[in-house]
Amino acid sequence: MSIFTRPILEIDLNKLLDNYNYLKTIAPKAVAASVIKDDAYGLGAAEVAAVLHDKGNCKNFFVAYAKEGEKIYPYVKDSNIYVLQGMGEEETLIFNKLKLIPVINSLEQLEFWKKNKIEGVKPAVHIDTGLNRLGLREDEIKQLSKEDISSFSLVMSHLACADVNDHFMNHQQLDEFDRLKKTYFPLLKSSLAASDGIFLEEKFHCDMVRLGAAVYGINTAPYLKSNIKNIIEIKAPIIQIAELKAGDYAGYSATYKASSNRKIAIVSIGYGDGYPRNLSNIGKIFFKMNDHIEHANVIGRVSMDNIICDITNIENLKVGDISYIIDDHYNVDDMGADSQTIGYEILSRFGKNPRFYRKYIK
Amino acid sequence: MSIFTRPILEIDLNKLLDNYNYLKTIAPKAVAASVIKDDAYGLGAAEVAAVLHDKGNCKNFFVAYAKEGEKIYPYVKDSNIYVLQGMGEEETLIFNKLKLIPVINSLEQLEFWKKNKIEGVKPAVHIDTGLNRLGLREDEIKQLSKEDISSFSLVMSHLACADVNDHFMNHQQLDEFDRLKKTYFPLLKSSLAASDGIFLEEKFHCDMVRLGAAVYGINTAPYLKSNIKNIIEIKAPIIQIAELKAGDYAGYSATYKASSNRKIAIVSIGYGDGYPRNLSNIGKIFFKMNDHIEHANVIGRVSMDNIICDITNIENLKVGDISYIIDDHYNVDDMGADSQTIGYEILSRFGKNPRFYRKYIK
Repeated sequence: MSIFTRPILEIDLNKLLDNYNYLKTIAPKAVAASVIKDDAYGLGAAEVAAVLHDKGNCKNFFVAYAKEGEKIYPYVKDSNIYVLQGMGEEETLIFNKLKLIPVINSLEQLEFWKKNKIEGVKPAVHIDTGLNRLGLREDEIKQLSKEDISSFSLVMSHLACADVNDHFMNHQQLDEFDRLKKTYFPLLKSSLAASDGIFLEEKFHCDMVRLGAAVYGINTAPYLKSNIKNIIEIKAPIIQIAELKAGDYAGYSATYKASSNRKIAIVSIGYGDGYPRNLSNIGKIFFKMNDHIEHANVIGRVSMDNIICDITNIENLKVGDISYIIDDHYNVDDMGADSQTIGYEILSRFGKNPRFYRKYIK
Repeated sequence: MSIFTRPILEIDLNKLLDNYNYLKTIAPKAVAASVIKDDAYGLGAAEVAAVLHDKGNCKNFFVAYAKEGEKIYPYVKDSNIYVLQGMGEEETLIFNKLKLIPVINSLEQLEFWKKNKIEGVKPAVHIDTGLNRLGLREDEIKQLSKEDISSFSLVMSHLACADVNDHFMNHQQLDEFDRLKKTYFPLLKSSLAASDGIFLEEKFHCDMVRLGAAVYGINTAPYLKSNIKNIIEIKAPIIQIAELKAGDYAGYSATYKASSNRKIAIVSIGYGDGYPRNLSNIGKIFFKMNDHIEHANVIGRVSMDNIICDITNIENLKVGDISYIIDDHYNVDDMGADSQTIGYEILSRFGKNPRFYRKYIK
């Protein structure tokens, strides 16, 4: 018998690279930049950047903060590192030292940039085309000088609804982007599509696509069958097996009451590891048997370190056996749907937890 | 004008110590152990352990995994470090090196312990009294030998419903704990109450209370007015201010449509930082004005790095101004309620995010 206690996160960097290479075939004419903000959605920005750079030949990376850029810099020294949230006072030193490229999101950020310019760095300019999040609006774009415009290296925008292929906003935003670009930035390279927009028509691709979520295995085009691969497995050991008698409660606040005698497994993962607490009495885990997969329902509340699962109908399980929490058969998108969110948030939550025994496959 | 981009997490270690000392007055006869698993609910196990040890005179700490014990060991070398999930193969070396104390949760873990005993270490034994999570059941306790029992240093159990003072399970579990202890472990020290159970009657206190959540500012006794203090502030800067015209959409999937002209602020925090995505179109943030507090609603989807907030009715805000996400006026319990979970999960999610500019007040 094996006795383990910690949950395991396996990240398959080969599959990650497969996803990146596959996405490049969808937008073959565009430069394929990688988005590795949020520590590569929790999967480890350094490891991910290194493989995309060394094996994927990626030379353009997007992070949210300079501090994130600092983390990947040693692995991608000859590349452009764009910082999406722009340059703030608390990170100016890092920008300078590593020649990171700020994205200018507002006139205030432009003003700050002009006072703190970095020699040899040409910022990207972010314009809003309908998402109404970050980016200059047209009345602000009109205030840019010729010098401002010629100081930029890239004009970019962001689509709001690109995961729905026939959403009216997609073409509305594309038309607006084309119009603003032609009117104000005719000479700049441009970028509009992220992992979702890339699956729309070719005209969305522009000069550069920004590939994030789909590289990490998230299905960003649910309306078609894409070749995106799940790249992670999350596993957790059974650390105890016990019986419930009919009428027994299980878990905090006694939200589960056994209607008959049950066999339960206590599995070593909980919301402290990123397992969503709103999967209390809803979640399911999996066991890989010789020739088939069995599933067990989470019963009672998810607690910080453990979940309780009903294994009444699964034979031959013992303490030390490994359950699957996320795998090809139940991926982050599936868990996202069950917990009323999206795969992005699921991945971001699991990925950052230091308690996992973390393995990279490469 | 100040231009910042990163969100800020401030952790007040003085207030944390106040909470610990206050809780000690509730259970003055019991040893006050500290629960700092999950990186002290994300707040930094090393910093938290150091202050509780040095200024709170705490000598007993509970973690979930040996790896977590390793992190605090340098700060609490003369203390007992109990490992709640027990000893697994992957962590045996750490147990040995630091003489960590495993909690024995099952007969399988006992068997493993007996093969891998550490000289001078006496494990705790965990018994189940109705939570039906980890812990020996009575039929298993009966299989313990006298030698097994005399090798333990502590018998512990865990309450299921102690945040509700008149829940029938509280006394049922206490009676069961007393019976099992008297029958099988009459000579052992005992521990039953955590941060919630401590607020029940004195007989729940036993020899040791295990203080976690309430030390971190979570209200574990919502039925009474306790003196627990919120210990964190989460703040995030406005990085852009813009206008919406009536009919404009905001955020991914166009879930928000402006019914009139609005002024919006893009604030630099998102689900990548732990802000719950299910607060899309629901959340609120706060601004501290000279003599009052203004609140602004989150509109549209929460994205990974940003939220969009309606600031139409707040005058004089500008880029660089700091919004409050969590503070005394809207704490983790309040956000937990709004996002259909508990303060524990909120804290655990925010705390572990490396993107925060993190400050300790001490």
